Amino acid sequence: MPLDTLADAFYDELRDILHAEKALVKALPKVAKAATNPELVAAVESHLEETKKHVARCEEAFTDTGKAARAKTCVAMEGLLKEAENMMGEEADPEVMDAVIICCAQKVEHYEIATYGTLCTWADLLGYPTALKALKQNLAEEEATDKKLSSLSRSINLSAKA
Amino acid sequence: MPLDTLADAFYDELRDILHAEKALVKALPKVAKAATNPELVAAVESHLEETKKHVARCEEAFTDTGKAARAKTCVAMEGLLKEAENMMGEEADPEVMDAVIICCAQKVEHYEIATYGTLCTWADLLGYPTALKALKQNLAEEEATDKKLSSLSRSINLSAKA
Repeated sequence: MPLDTLADAFYDELRDILHAEKALVKALPKVAKAATNPELVAAVESHLEETKKHVARCEEAFTDTGKAARAKTCVAMEGLLKEAENMMGEEADPEVMDAVIICCAQKVEHYEIATYGTLCTWADLLGYPTALKALKQNLAEEEATDKKLSSLSRSINLSAKA
Repeated sequence: MPLDTLADAFYDELRDILHAEKALVKALPKVAKAATNPELVAAVESHLEETKKHVARCEEAFTDTGKAARAKTCVAMEGLLKEAENMMGEEADPEVMDAVIICCAQKVEHYEIATYGTLCTWADLLGYPTALKALKQNLAEEEATDKKLSSLSRSINLSAKA
């Protein structure tokens, strides 16, 4: 589909993040399994529930575009998840693995923060109120997850260093 | 290499970002070529020069590890750059393409911000002063680039919408 207008770019990018969120729903149970620290496991499991809601909100955001909520392969998220999978396959001390998992998870969160940041700006400019509300909510939750991971990393990094 | 200690995780992650920065040095000239807005072209070209310095600072950061400055394929950055390349290959209005380029570039910046954030925390904990200084400088420049892109996006998004 040619990108003739900002609305085309918005639609394309929304399809990308829908695919990314769906890929995350599949990947997060494996991350929870690879983690050891109970607080980290709980954080990943709770983010999985949030991510399911993000998929629904992305689908809702398509309403304003008047087009189908069809995902488009997000090559970037595939790379992020492949890298995380490779890391989780390494032989590792469990506490070091927890620190590495947080590192991978924050990269994923930052991908989403960048994407939702742009999508919110574009939704606002395009006059897409439903999309703006839904995507702002997703953005806020990704930012909160990133902060939570930073906070968890304090004790986990110390254990990993010990 | 097994990840037995936080120092192992640091070394592994530093190898990852070294590869990512080198990949960016190769990719940015293509991004500058795909952009139209003169300010955006200048920003990409100036970030290319910065990125070359980031490679050198990453190499310097290896000193504290006592190990070779050897890059390790960064699958995540490969995905991010592949996605950007796909987008730049789309048929597009030049102003919409500029807006899309900023979106892709901010995803790349966020990847680096997340990675340097973790690396700085780990360098601090591990008592790696050379690495900490070099990586903090890279982090600050990535954050400044992200802000500059947000600022440029204001007028570029408006042109793309027009």
